Amino acid sequence: MKQFNSRDIDELHHLYRINLINSCSGYKSANLIGTKSEDGFSNVAVFSSVTHLGSNPGLLGFFLRPTTVMRHTYDNIKATGCFTINHIHQDILEDAHHTSAKYAREVSEFDVTSLNKIYRDDFHAPFVDGCPIQLAMEFVEEHSIPANNTVLVIGKISQLFVEEDLLHKDGFIDLSKAKVATINGLDAYAVPDFHRRLEYQRPKPGFAGRED
Amino acid sequence: MKQFNSRDIDELHHLYRINLINSCSGYKSANLIGTKSEDGFSNVAVFSSVTHLGSNPGLLGFFLRPTTVMRHTYDNIKATGCFTINHIHQDILEDAHHTSAKYAREVSEFDVTSLNKIYRDDFHAPFVDGCPIQLAMEFVEEHSIPANNTVLVIGKISQLFVEEDLLHKDGFIDLSKAKVATINGLDAYAVPDFHRRLEYQRPKPGFAGRED
Repeated sequence: MKQFNSRDIDELHHLYRINLINSCSGYKSANLIGTKSEDGFSNVAVFSSVTHLGSNPGLLGFFLRPTTVMRHTYDNIKATGCFTINHIHQDILEDAHHTSAKYAREVSEFDVTSLNKIYRDDFHAPFVDGCPIQLAMEFVEEHSIPANNTVLVIGKISQLFVEEDLLHKDGFIDLSKAKVATINGLDAYAVPDFHRRLEYQRPKPGFAGRED
Repeated sequence: MKQFNSRDIDELHHLYRINLINSCSGYKSANLIGTKSEDGFSNVAVFSSVTHLGSNPGLLGFFLRPTTVMRHTYDNIKATGCFTINHIHQDILEDAHHTSAKYAREVSEFDVTSLNKIYRDDFHAPFVDGCPIQLAMEFVEEHSIPANNTVLVIGKISQLFVEEDLLHKDGFIDLSKAKVATINGLDAYAVPDFHRRLEYQRPKPGFAGRED
């Protein structure tokens, strides 16, 4: 296997390093986060770090760098206390990826792409029309990460919208049926067309288990 | 679309809720985290929350509940300051998923599955032999999440091992070529067999950009 130690990584060319390190954690979620400023400028941006934190209450988190990039998303969340999460699917890959371009605050990504915003139930932040799963999120807390000057933003799910035919009887949402994408690295999008569900696992006979 | 508000979510049957909320953030990374206690008990466990935090330095994070489940992984990391991250791939799906069974501390998942541990360069924690990407991680910091009593553990990549034929000239690691898995919800594994790389995006002509 090819081996890189931390010094090798430090000394890599910038672009090589960001491709390598962005690829090395595995597949990432592919979401569009929608926000709107207090003065009415809407924003939508691609994020690959939305992660499940817990189901009771339903909490999700994501990472950003508020002082450098993605500042519109962060500023809008801090000012308004809300945002939306919308799943990127096969039909909108190019437009979703284009939201990574660095537009000025007064330019809405909804105006320069074919992505359409939709408002639901008087929620302040815009959803992305047509996404198979759409979440209204309330800001809960943020954590500064001193190690690299990023911020973990945590939100609570206040509304969950899902296309009915994706929903199994036990609550499972079939992402492959929805043609939801997953991200490899910075710029590669995969759309899995199949999955296998495995059973709940218990210790094998003859081996000691634990209670928790 | 089917709609759930936060009260609906609170009132769902426990199993329905964990399936629904675990599915709703999108595809998740599929990793085995390897650790070893100070007194020599090795542990390997499936995690779906490993997330990229930054490339310079190379930082990854993951979430766990130290007071309830996954305590062996957490205790070992806190005691020894290190762990490994190993990508789950098509050939080990069942064994990887089986590591979610609740074994006693003295039972190593390496002994009850076909997963084989391997040690590299005197690193204390075991790697999972055969995984196409294997990372040696040094503990950096942890953050308590009051909202649901979880912990974000952040580690720095100290060694990165990757199969040579997965590595593109620009540092991109081809996860689909490696048959790396991604997780949908609690128990569904997908193995994407294709991806599309899209170009770096700049603002379209006629629209204002920003500097950052």
